[in-house]
Amino acid sequence: MGDIVKKLAVLGSTGSIGQQTLQVVRALPHRFQIVGLTAGKNIDLLAEQINEFRPKFIYYQDKAAWNHLTKGECELLPPEDIACHPEVDTVVIATPGKSGLSPTLTAVKAGKKVALANKESLVAAGGIITSEAKLNGAQILPVDSEHSAIWQCIRGETQPPARLMLTASGGPFLHYSPARLNKVTVKQALKHPSWQMGRKVTIDSATLMNKGFEVIEAHWLFNIPYENIEVLIHPQSIIHSMVEFADGSTKAQLSYPDMRLPIQYALSYPERLSNPHLPRLDWSHINNLTFESPDLNTFPCLRLAVEAGERGGTCPAVLCGADEIAVELFLSQRIKFTEIANLVEQALEQHETIANPDLEEILAADIWARQKVMELATGDSQC
Amino acid sequence: MGDIVKKLAVLGSTGSIGQQTLQVVRALPHRFQIVGLTAGKNIDLLAEQINEFRPKFIYYQDKAAWNHLTKGECELLPPEDIACHPEVDTVVIATPGKSGLSPTLTAVKAGKKVALANKESLVAAGGIITSEAKLNGAQILPVDSEHSAIWQCIRGETQPPARLMLTASGGPFLHYSPARLNKVTVKQALKHPSWQMGRKVTIDSATLMNKGFEVIEAHWLFNIPYENIEVLIHPQSIIHSMVEFADGSTKAQLSYPDMRLPIQYALSYPERLSNPHLPRLDWSHINNLTFESPDLNTFPCLRLAVEAGERGGTCPAVLCGADEIAVELFLSQRIKFTEIANLVEQALEQHETIANPDLEEILAADIWARQKVMELATGDSQC
Repeated sequence: MGDIVKKLAVLGSTGSIGQQTLQVVRALPHRFQIVGLTAGKNIDLLAEQINEFRPKFIYYQDKAAWNHLTKGECELLPPEDIACHPEVDTVVIATPGKSGLSPTLTAVKAGKKVALANKESLVAAGGIITSEAKLNGAQILPVDSEHSAIWQCIRGETQPPARLMLTASGGPFLHYSPARLNKVTVKQALKHPSWQMGRKVTIDSATLMNKGFEVIEAHWLFNIPYENIEVLIHPQSIIHSMVEFADGSTKAQLSYPDMRLPIQYALSYPERLSNPHLPRLDWSHINNLTFESPDLNTFPCLRLAVEAGERGGTCPAVLCGADEIAVELFLSQRIKFTEIANLVEQALEQHETIANPDLEEILAADIWARQKVMELATGDSQC
Repeated sequence: MGDIVKKLAVLGSTGSIGQQTLQVVRALPHRFQIVGLTAGKNIDLLAEQINEFRPKFIYYQDKAAWNHLTKGECELLPPEDIACHPEVDTVVIATPGKSGLSPTLTAVKAGKKVALANKESLVAAGGIITSEAKLNGAQILPVDSEHSAIWQCIRGETQPPARLMLTASGGPFLHYSPARLNKVTVKQALKHPSWQMGRKVTIDSATLMNKGFEVIEAHWLFNIPYENIEVLIHPQSIIHSMVEFADGSTKAQLSYPDMRLPIQYALSYPERLSNPHLPRLDWSHINNLTFESPDLNTFPCLRLAVEAGERGGTCPAVLCGADEIAVELFLSQRIKFTEIANLVEQALEQHETIANPDLEEILAADIWARQKVMELATGDSQC
């Protein structure tokens, strides 16, 4: 396999995961070729990336700006067309929020390898995506550090895991009292202790909603019942998750918190590639790994997410949609940090679950949740 | 594979590992059948085991005692004949010290699955045993918790590990000063903080010689250069070892310190069997895993062992033989704890290494080392 060059499309190439994906490709140019790039906001960076990686297919959300791109030999194609293009082997879904769902589904239906960094697709539509993947021989390659850890730990194992232990840093507000949490600012919430990430996922990490999303993702990716998935606070972010097997043996995957490792693992799988830019653990400086149970009373989003996963149907879509708007409202300083959970909880309470929903019903539930949160927060249902 | 019953011979069935092997078999009677049992000292326990497990073949070291055994339908056979008997699938080598070498080699030459708990065979004759295993299609299944951990971590990986991190509890004298270590008693040395083991291996754990042996074993079992094997003190004995891969990702295997798990894994491999007697990690009680570098000045045995491994040839055999006598002298209170390392070091210094030794040269080096230590300690070379 030494010389196979994988042809990649990176959807959302100017975001945090997209940029780190291109760092991996830059370090291993003999193994990866960029065939497609898409972006939504940062046209200057996209132009630079096009200039460096010379993709065949590009897309930028704002059509008016197309002429500014150094298109050269590039063809402009919608993300969905790039995601299923015959010249693409592996599609990296690094677009945030709801926008990841449609290209993910297209890539899965085309039987591609799908390196999935977008959480919302699996959370809202995990049943549809995993069954379409099975049907079409697509492979979903997790990019989240936690799911990559689980995937690495079950490698070569022939029996399903008995239990998953998802680790969580606990975010910037670990050990805060509810009263103190009530007063935190946007600036404080955006300072994550161990990971450099986009704004939405950083806030979701601070509320532990992100960990709740990951529980739902793990349920779908590894076909594990919710009662066998646990969350463990591990502030050092060295152990990225653990798997317990039938005999009681547990395996863990460890590294410094650096998204390039799980990204590279997803892209190079089943090979592991030597990359001098990826750090090695220095055990002369790692003295102490600590663990504690999450505080579900102070951080109710984790509990809400797991409950939504267990209720199933359209509930996780409501969870996602409600959370996206609630986080936006917090980021624009229109609600307090603690109101994020309250709004999501109210939306879930008022939602009438549809079991085994199709894609339209999922999208409708998402829109309903967004409007509901807007209405609850501001009295105005437009968002 | 659900109903395959593996036929086991347990050599050294009345020792610590032997008894725990039989506990695993007792818990999973539909998967394992005891075909052979051998013991050296405890005839009463052997008689009980024969009565319970009804082996076809037995052996007891003291021929005069044979008539006391409830032989029934049992045939008396030397361990070497049991180890290569066609009715045996898997040979568990749980005999201590030098006595494990001959049956290990016989089993390996007969192409058996060899669950190897005896350290000295691989340390003294790792080159011969691993090349014979390769030649005869035998599989060496590690039983030591550290090597089982590494074996579990590399499961399914297609590339060799970049680095092994062997963990060590540090033993009962962790953080002792050399002066304080000079005064420790046999009773103190036999109190291991995390593992219940035989007397010899408990002393070897206290000197860290045991960890040195494990470095040499790991070198042979996994074909890893010594410079890529590190030792890390981890007093909680929850992480049993770790493997770092080419991409910088590290995997660890975790469990409470309980030898039944690695024993069962070796016996059931590639399956993992549910056994209600094996404990699951309780993460509500595991708050803290700590790590530190070993103190090679206070515990020189680890350094001596790694140096002997690196020198190769007959040196590791000298290490084993010298250590066995030095530990015996300490246990019989004829030398101080700190003299164990001094005696081993002197024997190694005075030894003229033979490169690529055959079995006779290895056995001769072992005998030479035993006599040398006896002579150095007492002025008398008889042992």
